[in-house]
Amino acid sequence: MAGNSLGQIFKITTFGESHGKALGAVIDGCPSGIRLAEADFIPEMERRRPGRSSFETPRTEEDRVEIVSGVFEGLTTGTPLTLLVGNHDVRSKPYGVLKNLFRPGHADYTYFKKFGHLDYRGGGRASARETAARVAAGVVARKVLAPFHMNILGHTLELGGIRAERMDPGVIPKNPLYCADPDAAVRMLEVLEKAKRAGDSLGGVVEVLVTGCPAGLGEPVFDKLDAELAGAIMSIGAVKGVEVGAGFEAARLRGSENNDPIRSTGFSSNRSGGILGGISNGDDLVLRAAVKPIPSIMKPQKTIDRQGRDATLELTGRFDVTAVARIVPVVEAMVALVLADHYLRARSGGQDFEV
Amino acid sequence: MAGNSLGQIFKITTFGESHGKALGAVIDGCPSGIRLAEADFIPEMERRRPGRSSFETPRTEEDRVEIVSGVFEGLTTGTPLTLLVGNHDVRSKPYGVLKNLFRPGHADYTYFKKFGHLDYRGGGRASARETAARVAAGVVARKVLAPFHMNILGHTLELGGIRAERMDPGVIPKNPLYCADPDAAVRMLEVLEKAKRAGDSLGGVVEVLVTGCPAGLGEPVFDKLDAELAGAIMSIGAVKGVEVGAGFEAARLRGSENNDPIRSTGFSSNRSGGILGGISNGDDLVLRAAVKPIPSIMKPQKTIDRQGRDATLELTGRFDVTAVARIVPVVEAMVALVLADHYLRARSGGQDFEV
Amino acid sequence: MAGNSLGQIFKITTFGESHGKALGAVIDGCPSGIRLAEADFIPEMERRRPGRSSFETPRTEEDRVEIVSGVFEGLTTGTPLTLLVGNHDVRSKPYGVLKNLFRPGHADYTYFKKFGHLDYRGGGRASARETAARVAAGVVARKVLAPFHMNILGHTLELGGIRAERMDPGVIPKNPLYCADPDAAVRMLEVLEKAKRAGDSLGGVVEVLVTGCPAGLGEPVFDKLDAELAGAIMSIGAVKGVEVGAGFEAARLRGSENNDPIRSTGFSSNRSGGILGGISNGDDLVLRAAVKPIPSIMKPQKTIDRQGRDATLELTGRFDVTAVARIVPVVEAMVALVLADHYLRARSGGQDFEV
Amino acid sequence: MAGNSLGQIFKITTFGESHGKALGAVIDGCPSGIRLAEADFIPEMERRRPGRSSFETPRTEEDRVEIVSGVFEGLTTGTPLTLLVGNHDVRSKPYGVLKNLFRPGHADYTYFKKFGHLDYRGGGRASARETAARVAAGVVARKVLAPFHMNILGHTLELGGIRAERMDPGVIPKNPLYCADPDAAVRMLEVLEKAKRAGDSLGGVVEVLVTGCPAGLGEPVFDKLDAELAGAIMSIGAVKGVEVGAGFEAARLRGSENNDPIRSTGFSSNRSGGILGGISNGDDLVLRAAVKPIPSIMKPQKTIDRQGRDATLELTGRFDVTAVARIVPVVEAMVALVLADHYLRARSGGQDFEV
Repeated sequence: MAGNSLGQIFKITTFGESHGKALGAVIDGCPSGIRLAEADFIPEMERRRPGRSSFETPRTEEDRVEIVSGVFEGLTTGTPLTLLVGNHDVRSKPYGVLKNLFRPGHADYTYFKKFGHLDYRGGGRASARETAARVAAGVVARKVLAPFHMNILGHTLELGGIRAERMDPGVIPKNPLYCADPDAAVRMLEVLEKAKRAGDSLGGVVEVLVTGCPAGLGEPVFDKLDAELAGAIMSIGAVKGVEVGAGFEAARLRGSENNDPIRSTGFSSNRSGGILGGISNGDDLVLRAAVKPIPSIMKPQKTIDRQGRDATLELTGRFDVTAVARIVPVVEAMVALVLADHYLRARSGGQDFEV
Repeated sequence: MAGNSLGQIFKITTFGESHGKALGAVIDGCPSGIRLAEADFIPEMERRRPGRSSFETPRTEEDRVEIVSGVFEGLTTGTPLTLLVGNHDVRSKPYGVLKNLFRPGHADYTYFKKFGHLDYRGGGRASARETAARVAAGVVARKVLAPFHMNILGHTLELGGIRAERMDPGVIPKNPLYCADPDAAVRMLEVLEKAKRAGDSLGGVVEVLVTGCPAGLGEPVFDKLDAELAGAIMSIGAVKGVEVGAGFEAARLRGSENNDPIRSTGFSSNRSGGILGGISNGDDLVLRAAVKPIPSIMKPQKTIDRQGRDATLELTGRFDVTAVARIVPVVEAMVALVLADHYLRARSGGQDFEV
Repeated sequence: MAGNSLGQIFKITTFGESHGKALGAVIDGCPSGIRLAEADFIPEMERRRPGRSSFETPRTEEDRVEIVSGVFEGLTTGTPLTLLVGNHDVRSKPYGVLKNLFRPGHADYTYFKKFGHLDYRGGGRASARETAARVAAGVVARKVLAPFHMNILGHTLELGGIRAERMDPGVIPKNPLYCADPDAAVRMLEVLEKAKRAGDSLGGVVEVLVTGCPAGLGEPVFDKLDAELAGAIMSIGAVKGVEVGAGFEAARLRGSENNDPIRSTGFSSNRSGGILGGISNGDDLVLRAAVKPIPSIMKPQKTIDRQGRDATLELTGRFDVTAVARIVPVVEAMVALVLADHYLRARSGGQDFEV
Repeated sequence: MAGNSLGQIFKITTFGESHGKALGAVIDGCPSGIRLAEADFIPEMERRRPGRSSFETPRTEEDRVEIVSGVFEGLTTGTPLTLLVGNHDVRSKPYGVLKNLFRPGHADYTYFKKFGHLDYRGGGRASARETAARVAAGVVARKVLAPFHMNILGHTLELGGIRAERMDPGVIPKNPLYCADPDAAVRMLEVLEKAKRAGDSLGGVVEVLVTGCPAGLGEPVFDKLDAELAGAIMSIGAVKGVEVGAGFEAARLRGSENNDPIRSTGFSSNRSGGILGGISNGDDLVLRAAVKPIPSIMKPQKTIDRQGRDATLELTGRFDVTAVARIVPVVEAMVALVLADHYLRARSGGQDFEV
């Protein structure tokens, strides 16, 4: 299995299973001279951490990031930056059932088919816990982008069919769902409560807005900025769709409606989502990700065992009702990682950015 | 500018501008011993070629693919396969206007910002013509996948707001829109006619279904099969959104609705789109791409010139009314390229496939 | 700084400074199902460890390899394998001098020029300690190659001008210089003693022989097996030259002398070093590396300080007199890493190997 | 077969067989705005071209480089630069013999083992003709490096055992062997004449000196500048050994002899070959390559046929007596390619170079 690396110049490699000793990331290609301390990781790790609401399991990981290499006297040295996050709260789960049955909607079945084994302790690399390494690396990516004063802001646009109608950035950190519309947040919490009681789970839509992104990031053809952002966001376990700008709505517009007029003062509209021909145009980036409902539910489900025999899976214990809120900082991290890499790639080509 | 390569083992690099001498692709990593002739490219190149209906410009390129290297005595040798497609119908366009004005919705503005030049002859690498190289390479990818008897079938699911309600594969090649619903096709042609008369353009949704895809393709974490498919499809110029399986609809389902039950006889439903945890599960792959309306329209548009001054762009000549149908074989090609690469990657890991 | 990764399918990324918390490697692309335990690393780590003779500094690192991820129930899972080696014996060195002066023959000057900082604690990534991660990863590479029953055998061919005249594999582990000629080993120890008394250091030549390497490894053109082996071996800090087979001697032979006749029973000679056209031919691989004398010596040396002013460097403490013996297991590891990667690459192309 | 690409940012992919339609290179990652015309390639292609002396076969290829893409209005656009060199003089060779017999010292045997086929027309990708693409790409690399006013100068240091004792750059272009010592050149021609009469061939040593190389190129650990140079040079078909600076001689020096003292005015000596810790130190780069004698000779040779039966190969026709001189511009090209890539990589990390 390869495929645990992302980026060409700002290249991260993540490692670690949910129930192993630790997980983490190596960042190869981080420029030297960036101030970095372990405390810098705390806020983002807190945002991603489970247990912030009654709809998330209370795994009590501190998720402290340890810098193992790459920093000397408080500054990055340009050598590989290794970030380690220990797994401390590795509880015994009801392994009895999972040792032999594939959980529907999970990667159990496909990992078994591909690798011939089943990490029944909780998903291994397919666990949501893997995203802790992404969020940690994303903190460093934001530091690389710091000269631009970008703001990479994610929020829960939709959850269980409830859609936010307002976008008030100040509201986002004030509710556990990271929703920018306080009224919608209340209703989202209601449908979550209902789903929880039903032993079921909910999905939603996460949106990320990037202000301050300079024009000229991205490469034509295969490494378009939107192509790499889409790939990076789709690589988050629960994501089943990605949109840029008007997205699927653009499919229903006419050219005269969809084209953003260009004015000496900037673009008059932003249906492009800030990207034209795969290259950022200086306007805000707008991205959306469809997040599926968490597959672990309390209802009995039809499945098969390792021998291929029909069986019924009945999970016990506590499970998250939705992954949407926790995915918000992960999508932000993926966006930061792709942008940092493209910034360094652009610089290799000699592009000068006014920062 | 890097970024003109795709794939890790079955690696293609495309090159060429729409108005240069030729465009093409080098495929590095094609296995040896595959029978390949120039005639093999004709059907797919014909499907992509413009001018098949009155809603497309009649650029009369033959789009003959020349094999420059990599084939000896009718078989691939394992050396780089070079495919060349000449540009013969390179007509003078109304350059006067384009030499100084940026076309809204096109890559003119961002290329100029990034590279400091403007290939005013017709988009350069950002031209739809670039996709000819993708389709040619896709033909070879399908040959690599031939042992699996996969069928990679694209069709126009939606156009100008008209959605196909039936999926009859036999109908697809019988209309110029590659629509699987003959009634919808008629209505799509009507809205195209209306848009054409209005000097406007239309977008739509392309769906690709892959039957016969074996379980075990794709890698966990960043190189998930759906992540790479999403990135590859989003790298097609006009695509603004990508979905796998239930896609954005999954965001509105409950876990109990969205999970596909597993039975000894297979999956009972396919909301996953054939991919779990980034790895194919043996079911059909289902992907959808949102295609924006073509930005070149006959209506006057607000823009700026190279000096940043407000101006109005009035295009003359003939333009395509929609790109949706022509993108169908391109999306198929991107899917084939990603699958071929992942098949060879899986083989490197020692996976055995029953074919 | 990128460049801390090696390999395309069996891809290792190393990290860690000599005086940081730990160093290690992440191996992405290791096949699943390989039995691996922490004890497996002990023998090779012992061979590389300093302090085995009076000509090496007695840094008393245990160099225990900790498996942080990628192994479950004693078998590799196919997920990234993370190997960690703690730095415990991080003594205070005479930093006073090194904080401002560049050591001749070391990377101090070039790192300072490139990265703008100086890890004066002992070389950072340029330290010989970095090779611990290579040796650890090499142990895993050998496991990947195990089906071939290859033997990758390094030895000290030359040291301080004394050349081994015999090649008796049984003798190699019996002297601290890994020399296959017991008489030469005695004389090598004598010149080392003399150099030590003079406060000086010595270089030499390491040879690696690989038996059991199957034909068909390596790729034509840039990724020739010998090209990648040469690059990998030259990436070891002290190596200044690499030869394959007859090497520089081939430059003085005639074609009729240098060509290895092919017989139905095999090659009659092996001046090619087992590689023709960049691809292994089934004969033994023969490689040699020129190792320069260790630059840290007790004699006063002319240098400059960070401000560019002339100065004299006088090192105190204890230093290794030669790196040759310790590099033997490192060269072996590099060879194993390149071969494992090429084996998996060949497998992706569909090559079958009789094992 | 992958492996036809070199470089990470300035990335070239070469293609084409010696007896196919054409060969060439795609350069992905060339910065925009560099002036480039087809005439720029003529001098270097002439230097590499066979037939300049009576010791080389008179294949009368013009070796004209055609720019297929990537240049508009005389400037590179930043899009892939495609260079095509047609094969016109593809004569019938004595295929009868080669269709079934492996030529000793050639890649025939290993290609057959790896790919299951034999391009008996003259070596396919293993032909010396493949280097034409390298030289063409090298011309572009030199243009990328132009701001530094580097001089990349190769010469024949040794041929058939005769070593140049003087290094007079002005003499190099004045003899067909590119030897910097006119007296040695005469003697080299004599031994070539003798070898030719004997139906045999000769090898030698090529040296490349680079003046004007800035400090700070190269990356620590695996992508050291010397490691990548060694790999790139060893990837030339006939090369069996590579040295940097003192090279194998360094193995016989003491530390006090081998360390280059650093002075405020520069390094007092250059045994490092201009590279310390994998990074250029601002001094001249010094590299040497051992070139084996051409394996095609007129003497009968023992070999086997495709069925593994013993046979005798008797070649007829005309063959080069040595490849040394023709390899001089190829080694220069490889050096230029690696330096251009490392320059762009350094720039991505934010390094400023005074040019």
